[in-house]
Amino acid sequence: MTTGTTPSSPPAAALGRVLVVGTGLMGTSVALALSESGVAVHLADRDPAAVALAVDLGAGRAEEPPADPDLVVLAVPPRALADALAGLQRLYPSSSFTDIASVKARPQTEVETLGLDLTRFVGGHPLAGRERSGAGAARADLFEGRPWVLTPHPSTAPATLQRASDLVRRCRADLVLMSPQRHDEAVALVSHAPQVLASLMAARLEQADPELVGLAGQGVRDVTRVAASDPALWTEILTANAPRLLGVLDSVADDLAALRAVLAGAAPDDAAAAVTDLLRRGNAGRARLPGKHGSTPATYAIVPVVVPDRPGELGRIFAAAGDAGVNVEDVSIEHSPGQPVGLLELAVRPEAAPVLAEALRRRGWAVHP
Amino acid sequence: MTTGTTPSSPPAAALGRVLVVGTGLMGTSVALALSESGVAVHLADRDPAAVALAVDLGAGRAEEPPADPDLVVLAVPPRALADALAGLQRLYPSSSFTDIASVKARPQTEVETLGLDLTRFVGGHPLAGRERSGAGAARADLFEGRPWVLTPHPSTAPATLQRASDLVRRCRADLVLMSPQRHDEAVALVSHAPQVLASLMAARLEQADPELVGLAGQGVRDVTRVAASDPALWTEILTANAPRLLGVLDSVADDLAALRAVLAGAAPDDAAAAVTDLLRRGNAGRARLPGKHGSTPATYAIVPVVVPDRPGELGRIFAAAGDAGVNVEDVSIEHSPGQPVGLLELAVRPEAAPVLAEALRRRGWAVHP
Repeated sequence: MTTGTTPSSPPAAALGRVLVVGTGLMGTSVALALSESGVAVHLADRDPAAVALAVDLGAGRAEEPPADPDLVVLAVPPRALADALAGLQRLYPSSSFTDIASVKARPQTEVETLGLDLTRFVGGHPLAGRERSGAGAARADLFEGRPWVLTPHPSTAPATLQRASDLVRRCRADLVLMSPQRHDEAVALVSHAPQVLASLMAARLEQADPELVGLAGQGVRDVTRVAASDPALWTEILTANAPRLLGVLDSVADDLAALRAVLAGAAPDDAAAAVTDLLRRGNAGRARLPGKHGSTPATYAIVPVVVPDRPGELGRIFAAAGDAGVNVEDVSIEHSPGQPVGLLELAVRPEAAPVLAEALRRRGWAVHP
Repeated sequence: MTTGTTPSSPPAAALGRVLVVGTGLMGTSVALALSESGVAVHLADRDPAAVALAVDLGAGRAEEPPADPDLVVLAVPPRALADALAGLQRLYPSSSFTDIASVKARPQTEVETLGLDLTRFVGGHPLAGRERSGAGAARADLFEGRPWVLTPHPSTAPATLQRASDLVRRCRADLVLMSPQRHDEAVALVSHAPQVLASLMAARLEQADPELVGLAGQGVRDVTRVAASDPALWTEILTANAPRLLGVLDSVADDLAALRAVLAGAAPDDAAAAVTDLLRRGNAGRARLPGKHGSTPATYAIVPVVVPDRPGELGRIFAAAGDAGVNVEDVSIEHSPGQPVGLLELAVRPEAAPVLAEALRRRGWAVHP
């Protein structure tokens, strides 16, 4: 993993010490990436257990910074941003500040209304995340190759923007500059409306007969995956961006009303034409999505092994891998409860795959090609 | 891979020779599974290239059956079913017939209207698929652990149902018996409405500014994945099931209208309450989806352990679990490449969680609450 400067990097002096406030998934991931790049990272959170886990994971230290940090990253809910910024700007009068909240226009207005030091603040939003939350789900590579929007204000000092840009670079994200309003228009389309549609679909399942739900497959699972998101956080996000979200939802409602009308009508050909038109527009829109990026570099090879479901079996497998000098990078188990065997998938570096497969075969396991 | 009978299997004589008509993704997958289980499979398709590919993949042979097959599997579009069945029932007067189309009520009505032999036909639908199509994407294990609905009619002969059930068993799917109407109600909810919502969302992206689409991430990718589906096939499916699909879409439209009203209204607290309510119902509905392999999500307890990233470490952990008599049901590793530690999450039966946590703590691992 790259950790240092490259010939095209700005001066390493840009970020020496950073305070991350909020050690949930996002804050801890930022802290892991910064620590890995050689920055001294300090961690703070209202919840001491969250900080302790982040510290154990190597994200940074729990002590207060001995001097003003170069940059304070506010990984707090959008509603809490302005107040937190007010207190911390007083505490650290020479620090720069940025945040990572997923709405930008309203918090920016609140910051301006409170009369805070706009030269030392630039809003930010890394377009990355997981459906899981908490420090335990954090990853140093969460932002790799993902867009990271900064929303500079005319008053933002160049040094502030430079430090925040260095944060983005060290997290290996792609810097995008936008106005807060433009950012919010974008996330209404690509994040907030999809969240609403996923929840609308999943809500249909709440009271449905189990026999019907039992036929669910991967399609509805994918459509509704983000419906598992945290209601408190997403209520804050969706209501903070209501005007722009409504623009997208209005056009969805128009299309939906038109579709229902032809499906309920007496002209099968009209219904077929309208359905085909919607499906084709869906094809076209779907095809415009950028390719998969930000996902973990899929450079591991998978070694699938059929394993009996009994205590100690996984231990013997992993012990055999260790004996063979192979480090298992990731693992998953495909296993129907009640079935006597499961399929274990071991992710290893490509050069280690044949070594591991041979070691396991020699000891009697069924390794699949 | 298991291929033979088990003590609980019906007589192996049930299926000796099967004709699969239509060698796309589904038909070829059925043929692969049947061939693997020892059945003599014959293949037919209007497109000779599709048959040739299926033959090369080992799905069966291209010759006509030398005698009436025990079962003919019609893997043709729903609109083509009744006519195809009429011709083949004349050609093979002693064969049983089933299909695999994703709508059941309208084709059943068409079969009855044509006066075909209802004793020799039972409708079927395996709830499986891939976003890829064609014989090349076929998999013998496509149906493994998935529901496979059969929709027997009062006239269906026991031998017909037995042969179709044997098909389901040989594909290692889970047999579900339903009326055609009930089946169509289920797929309207778990398949057809999700398709419409995915297309509605993806259609918003068709004309959107590239700068906005550029911020898209995994959430919108998942919500819109099925929007890439074939418009011709899905037009046929959605219009054939219009009455039941409309029932689901009406309730979506009602929820959407209510949400837009509060978001556009002047009462922020009302908006927040309504948004939270929708998100919570979405959480609840999402949680009702069956897990992988169609199983109900198991209620395991998670024991999170911080582990150094070095060969043998997982082996020592699993050995310790085995020593403590604890069976690890599932495992995942949260691990940033390059980080010296990872978070291992061990899923165990709830009563075993404290036993395992204590055993690991005693041996020096950092177990988090």
